[in-house]
Parts: sequence; structure tokens; C-alpha cells
Amino acid sequence: MVILGIDPGSVITGYGVIEARGRHCRLLDCGVVRPGSRKALADRLKVIYDGLCEVIDRHRPEMLAIETAFGGRFPRAALVLGHARGVALLSAANRDLQVWEYAPREVKMAIVGTGGASKQQVQGMVRATLNLDRDPMPEDASDAVAVALCHHYRISGRIKAVDRIRRR
Amino acid sequence: MVILGIDPGSVITGYGVIEARGRHCRLLDCGVVRPGSRKALADRLKVIYDGLCEVIDRHRPEMLAIETAFGGRFPRAALVLGHARGVALLSAANRDLQVWEYAPREVKMAIVGTGGASKQQVQGMVRATLNLDRDPMPEDASDAVAVALCHHYRISGRIKAVDRIRRR
Repeated sequence: MVILGIDPGSVITGYGVIEARGRHCRLLDCGVVRPGSRKALADRLKVIYDGLCEVIDRHRPEMLAIETAFGGRFPRAALVLGHARGVALLSAANRDLQVWEYAPREVKMAIVGTGGASKQQVQGMVRATLNLDRDPMPEDASDAVAVALCHHYRISGRIKAVDRIRRR
Repeated sequence: MVILGIDPGSVITGYGVIEARGRHCRLLDCGVVRPGSRKALADRLKVIYDGLCEVIDRHRPEMLAIETAFGGRFPRAALVLGHARGVALLSAANRDLQVWEYAPREVKMAIVGTGGASKQQVQGMVRATLNLDRDPMPEDASDAVAVALCHHYRISGRIKAVDRIRRR
């Protein structure tokens, strides 16, 4: 089972691809698509879309895991994030991937065990879990791997008990 | 010169295609892509994207005119609108259309002559300008035609003087 995690953004979009066999998993690939902030928005979206399609074609994941976005406090930022998220979801729909969404707290809870974990804690746990020599860089790539891992835990029944209790 | 206008939305996306020759123009096509609200977001975005690509392939417009979205007051609504807008912009980028954005006030100003015009006033002026038997329906299609017309006025130098003055 190959899972693609995406952390979308109009300036940097992170991706992480993991292969899960039973309860074990390994990192196949991670990185970022960086369309550059000088391009027009439509062209940036094309770079993101093409980049993600390339990753999908390379690794043929069956599932996409992506963070649920609630829009935050700033409508303008939410709108721009929505553009990047839209083309990320489209890349999945156009390649017949199943899409799963996880709230940021849910991802932190699954990876570190607490919904209030810091970025560094998540990064450290991603590194330890996947037996990596160093933290996946940049942070956006690490976040994308984290959401893929979160989905792996969910489907292999390893979401921590405390999370289940809180979700009731 | 063929201009595509789009009024994006995750439930209904309106489109309007006009052909401009010098100062004259006529309506080639207008309508809506309605992905249905029951589908998953990724699948709705695919329906919007495929629908717009089909319109582009049918009429081969050179330019896309779309309303600038400022995000409004509600981050959640802005995020969802961003998704639809993202795939609309992507359809244009993937077909090499030039993209032009207009603020809602700018569209109303161009069509009716006042930035505070009502939807009905815009619809009535679109109908009169294009010599149509009836208002383009639904409203989303009419709004899409309006933004295409606004772009036509802009490039043919017909934006009303009052608008120019206000924009200074």
C-alpha cells in the first residue's frame, strides 16, 4: 500500500510518499514543489498540479492523505490556500486516488501522541519512525510525510487510544 | 477575439463565452457546471475542471476573465471558493489562456455604470448589450458573461470614464 501525503501551499507544497506493509512502513520519497512566488497564480497552480501528477505517476500511490483545512482566521489566506488545495485534490481525483482528510490535531496526536505537539516534535517522530538519517527537510515535506503516516496508523488500527477517546 | 468569463463556485460554476470583433460582441455560449453537492470535494473539483476544459476546447478562447476574490468575511467559505477558483485557473493555465482578474465592483461599474449595481441590473444590461431574448440563466451564468463583457470593455477602451476617475 503506497500512501501519498500532501501539505499544500501556493508558495511551497510538500509531499511525502510512504509504502506500508502490514504495520511496517518506509519512506519512498519526499520533497516540495516550489512554484516561485513571482509567477502569476494560475501558473503557480499549474506547477503544483504538474509536480504532484509527476509524483503520483512515479510512485502510483493508492491513497492521498491531506490535512483538513478549516480556513484559519484570515479569509484572504484561506482563499489562497484553497487554490493550492484545490489543484492538489484534483491531481488525486484525476489519478483515481482515494482521498482522506485529517485535522492537524489528529495528525499530531497520531504521530506524537498529543494534539498540541510542536513542529519539531512531529519532525523528530517522523524521522525516528521511518528510521531516517536526518529530519525530512524542509518542514513542508516533513508535514506531508506526517499526514501520510497518520493515515497509515489509521488504516492499520494504530491510532493511539487517547485519540479514540477524545474523538468520541 | 474570444473571451471566456468564469464565476467559480464549488456547487455551481458559471461560464460565459463571448466573441468580440472591434467594439461589437456576441454571446457564443453560457451555462453552468453543477457538480452536485453530494459528491466528495475532490470529485466535484474534477467535474468543474473537466467541464471548463470542455468549454475551452469547444470555443478556443484566448483569454479568461474571472472575478478577483478577496475572501469575504468567512474563512471557511473563502477556502471552499478557493478550491473551485484554483481548478478554474488551472484549466486556463493548462490551455495557455491569458488570465485577467476584475474586482466585483469593477465588473458592475463596467456593465451598469455603478459599482453598487444589483444582480438584476447587471443581468438586464448583459441581456440588452448582447441582444438576447431573455436574461442568461441561472444568475451564475449571467455573472460569468458579465465579467467576460467587462474584459471586452477594458481591452476595447470602453471602461466608463467614471470608473477611470474612481480608480485613480
